[in-house]
Order: sequence, then C-alpha cells, then structure tokens
Amino acid sequence: MDANQLNFSAGPGALPATVLEQVQEAVRAAPGAGLSILGISHRSPWFADVVAEVETRVRRLLGLPERYHVLLLQGGATQQFSMLPMLLLRGHQTPADYLLTGYWSGKSVPEARREGRVRLLWDGSPECFHRLPDDRELQFAADAAFFHYVSNETVEGLQFQRIPGLDTVPRICDMSSDFLSRPIQAERFQCIYAHAQKNLGPAGVTLVILDDQLLTAKPADPSLPGFLDYREHVRTHSIYNTPPVFAIYVTLLVLRWLEDSIGGLAAMAAINQRKAATLYAALDQYPDVFMGRARVQDRSLMNVVFTMPSPEIEQQFLHEAASAGFSGLGGHRAIGGLRASIYNGLEQAACDRLAAFMTDFAAKRR
Amino acid sequence: MDANQLNFSAGPGALPATVLEQVQEAVRAAPGAGLSILGISHRSPWFADVVAEVETRVRRLLGLPERYHVLLLQGGATQQFSMLPMLLLRGHQTPADYLLTGYWSGKSVPEARREGRVRLLWDGSPECFHRLPDDRELQFAADAAFFHYVSNETVEGLQFQRIPGLDTVPRICDMSSDFLSRPIQAERFQCIYAHAQKNLGPAGVTLVILDDQLLTAKPADPSLPGFLDYREHVRTHSIYNTPPVFAIYVTLLVLRWLEDSIGGLAAMAAINQRKAATLYAALDQYPDVFMGRARVQDRSLMNVVFTMPSPEIEQQFLHEAASAGFSGLGGHRAIGGLRASIYNGLEQAACDRLAAFMTDFAAKRR
Repeated sequence: MDANQLNFSAGPGALPATVLEQVQEAVRAAPGAGLSILGISHRSPWFADVVAEVETRVRRLLGLPERYHVLLLQGGATQQFSMLPMLLLRGHQTPADYLLTGYWSGKSVPEARREGRVRLLWDGSPECFHRLPDDRELQFAADAAFFHYVSNETVEGLQFQRIPGLDTVPRICDMSSDFLSRPIQAERFQCIYAHAQKNLGPAGVTLVILDDQLLTAKPADPSLPGFLDYREHVRTHSIYNTPPVFAIYVTLLVLRWLEDSIGGLAAMAAINQRKAATLYAALDQYPDVFMGRARVQDRSLMNVVFTMPSPEIEQQFLHEAASAGFSGLGGHRAIGGLRASIYNGLEQAACDRLAAFMTDFAAKRR
Repeated sequence: MDANQLNFSAGPGALPATVLEQVQEAVRAAPGAGLSILGISHRSPWFADVVAEVETRVRRLLGLPERYHVLLLQGGATQQFSMLPMLLLRGHQTPADYLLTGYWSGKSVPEARREGRVRLLWDGSPECFHRLPDDRELQFAADAAFFHYVSNETVEGLQFQRIPGLDTVPRICDMSSDFLSRPIQAERFQCIYAHAQKNLGPAGVTLVILDDQLLTAKPADPSLPGFLDYREHVRTHSIYNTPPVFAIYVTLLVLRWLEDSIGGLAAMAAINQRKAATLYAALDQYPDVFMGRARVQDRSLMNVVFTMPSPEIEQQFLHEAASAGFSGLGGHRAIGGLRASIYNGLEQAACDRLAAFMTDFAAKRR
C-alpha cells in the first residue's frame, strides 16, 4: 500500500493511484498531444476535446437534461458564494433562503448578504452544529429568490441524506465535498457547484452545473465583470480566459476512472457506504474512547468527525497515527478534534487499516 | 532533444525539462511531504513553507522593498483587470490612464470602464498595433487615479524596452508575458501582476506584487466580496480559500530553477536576448519571405511575430514546421500569421533549430 492510500486529508484529498500514474505520464507528454500537459495551449483542439469529454462524462454520470450547462471555473466554492447571489439576488424583491448547517454554509451567508436579503431557515449554531434540521423544522417560502444549502459539511461531518426544499423554488446546492460520491436527482436542482479538490481532481478548478432557466429569467447585468458572469463562461465553453488546463485534465482522468473503472455513481456510493460503515463501526465499538460528533442519522459518508475524552488523548492518537503512516487526521482548526476524510479516491483498504488502528488504540486504553 | 524543447506555444508555455522531472516525482510523492502533491492540505505546514519560499524568492529576484505584498491569486490577469479598478477607480474623482497597445491591453480597458473613467493616453489600433508609442507622444496626467500598461503584448509581439509614466502616479503593469524574463526596477511600480503560464509555472495561479500604500490610501469597500479584496489575501497570506496547490508548487520549482540553475534575472535576460536575436536574425535575413510584425525597436524578446507573403505560404510553413517537430507556431486567432513564443523555459537549442528550419524554408523558395 503506498502513502497515498493512507491520506485522510479533508482537502485537497487523495486521488486514485491509477490517476496519479497517468498524471505523471502526462507531465512528461500528454497522450495524443506530444507535449507536456503543463505546456499545452488552452486554444488547442486537443484541449477542446478534454473540456468536451469532461462535460459529456458529467452529463452521463448525472443523467443531466439538455437544459443544464456544465462549466469549469476558477475561484473555488468561495467564488460561487458570490457569483450566484450576483446573478439571482442583486436587485431581487424577495430574500434568498439559506440553511446555516456548519462552517461552510456559514461562509456562504455573509457573501450572499452583500448582494441582497438572506433569510436563515435554520441556524444550527446554538446546537454547535451537531445535527441537521428535520423537515418539520423548516418553513420553506414559495416566493424565495432561491434556496441554498450545503449537502455535506466537511468540518462538522454532517451530510443530508435527502433533498430539502420546494421543487418550485430554484434549489442551489454546494456539493463541494460529496459531488459524484453517490447518485443524485440532478434535475431537482437549478444549480450544483463543487470545487474539484475532494472527489473530482486537484485544487484549482470548480465545476458548476447551471439550469439555463436561471440565465434567461433575468437580463444581463452590464456592471458585472466578464469573469463573474455565467453567460460569458457559457458562451466561451469554459474558456473565457486561460483555464487551469492541468486541473481540468486531471479531472477528466478522475471522471474516466469513476465511470470506466468503478462503474458509475451507484457503484461509487456502495464503496463509500462500506468505507464509512467501517469507520463508524470502529467509533461505535468504543463509545468511551471515540465520540462521533454528528447525530447518527446525519453522519457524513465523506468526513468521519469525532472527539476523544481529552485533548491529551487526541494528541496521543494523532501522534501514534502519524507514526503508523496515517496522514491528515487532525480536525478542522475551527473546532479541533479528529477527522477522517474518505473521499472517492481513498480505498476501502485504507479504512480497514485505520479502523484496525483505532480498535487497537482503544483496546489498549480499556 | 525532447518534445518539450520544441514547444513554441504562446501560453501555457513550455517549462524547463528539469522542472518537469521534479513535477513527475512530486505527483508520486512531494519531497518532504510523503504524499502526492495533488493530495496535500493547503493548511499543512509543508504548504505554508512552499508559499513562504515562493514569496522569499520573488522578493530576492526582484530586490523588492519590504512595503510590497507578494500574493498568489486565481483568475488570471483577467481577474486583475477588474480587481485593480475595483480598488483604485471605483468612486475615484479623476480617470485612470491606460495605454492601448494591443490585444491584451484592449481586454483590460472595458473591465476598468465598468468601475470608473478611463482615458486612453495612446490608441495604437489605427496603426494596427505595429508599434508602441514614443514618450513624446504621451501626455501623462499628474492627477490620474493610476497609470496602467502591458509590458509585453503577446499577440502583436510588442515589448516596452523602457518604463513609461510618471513616478508620482501609481504605476500598474500587466507583466503576464515577460515577468521574470529580465531585471526590472520593481520599486518604480505600485503593482505588477502576471499569470504564471508564460515564464512562471502552469496556468491556474497569478502572482500579484502590491505596494501596501495602495491599500492604506483608501478605506475598505464592504460591498466587495472577500475574494476580490486584496486585503483579505494579504491578511491570509494567499490562503483566503483553497489555493491552487499544484500550480503554486510548480511555480516554486521554476523559481528555484531560475535562481539556482540559471543564476537570476540578469543571466536569464542574456539567455532570452540571444534566443530572440537568433530568430530575428533569421527573419531579417529573408525579408522577402518573413515580415516581422513589430517596429524593430519595439520587438518583443518573448513573442516573435511575423507574416509571410501569402496565407498559402504561411499554411505551408506551418505544415512543414509541424512535420519537423515544431509546435505552437500559429499566430493568435485575432490576427493570424505566425508566432514563435520563446519564454524562459524554452532553450537556445530550440531557437537554433527553428532558425535553421526557417533559413532552409526561405532558401528553398528563392
């Protein structure tokens, strides 16, 4: 097992070993191009084919209807926190509805408020984001400008196992940390965005799926710089200015792996469920040593977040884990604790080894 | 000679062969990190060291005074076309002065005009951008909000061999295509920006050098999203949100190569001058076959742009060049013709081979 399989980093996350081998080859010479992937023109027919294949594969994996655009942008999810309200909230009469379910949705709300009114349908902060809201706790407004939520909160380890909101209000979802980890009903969303660096590729590119109806509903805003205007990116097929060629190419390699080697989203979901079950079982076996942070029904299949009885034991755990070759297990700096991130690229074998390590660690302390 | 050395692409441009070898290794396992460079957390101490070393090396190469910030951003030069006017022109009383010297300065002007008034001190379009302005043709305003120009126009092959403008007005320069290709008097600029994909690294990261006085001169603008506010990037040492880890690491490898293997900017300039002289000599030897596009004193040392007597001969030249292993010689789609881009990463040997090919091609047609 190589070092990469023991990488539990919350992001940028581990990529599949077979993809890394192909990336090394492409740095020397990209297949079919005869040049290093780092020196290929973004205006070349070769790269146009790369972008087209990324789009085709995303459409096929999600069963995406024709009316959606598939865009490759820069700036991460953070840029989408602003771009979407610039399009949909600036000058709008009614507020947008947001769910505040953790650290990352907490980042999206202030950016939206620069552009218009935001209503929090749920604020999980008084409960320290230990759970997600139940449907009966949410009063969705039929006239909201749009409804925004984060499908997986990486910091707190919370993941929606349903699609909240009204199908009659534009539903926008930040799927940065669980995109393509399981099948979704994509046609129930007007926009899905995800930076690459969890399940999709390296940091530096963000995938945006946008219902064309969002663009036709309002006239263009001439005050908006071109790079913040989705219309420009649609018009130029994601090559408005020089795109991150390398990151997009690696994304293509990951999509090929996901579709051709893994077998698509249902197969990926089965693998991810088993990986998560392995780690949560280790947690639940020793509840006096490992305390899962999230309410059980809201547990994330991507980020297993837990604490231990004291900061000293947590440090001891991290220290011994590092010595045993496990990387990236420290919790987010905002809340501390421990976190095992198990994105698509991480294999079952790595979870098996971590579970065994956790079991040993706990048993020794009994 | 490998394929990379014959890559005359205008950008993303060729990177040094030794850098590509190190990149391949880092995709397997980054030295000192024990993980693939594609799966390393941007919050790791390892990556903080990478960012710090990039900054240190840029400061040393340019002899940069303390008052400058060195930032690593996303969005390319295009994002800077907007970010700088958002900071300096929005709400400002006097116009900003721009030089319109070619394709890329032509892209910067409309974005600035969204934020305030722009005055063109020079418009080279009636002369089809065959030359740059002389100083006696420029009337600089002492009260301009700032003065902006592009040091090297890649499409037309024009390069300033002096620093225009008043030292009393904030001087802002888009050096995307000749940054670190020669020594500059950096302290005469309040801002220099350059996307990486010419001389510095792969597409996906942009280096911005910013005089702190530009930030202290005006109060912060609360309407600006965090990612468009230089203050946020200064405050977070270029890790405001997940940065393009891979592109920044490759940039570090290029900086090490430039400083430790080449010997710094004066040595780099000498190499670049010889490379350009080789190709311009081939042009000038056969003026009935190759017509240099730029006025001789404005010729770019980065992009050798030329035309031939007919489109048919140009196509023949491109066809034969491709067969002989030369890549990327087609002119920009906006003006056609031919272009050999000879950024830092391209070796003298590649220019020698292209010059020999051109001489052969021309001699056969005599």
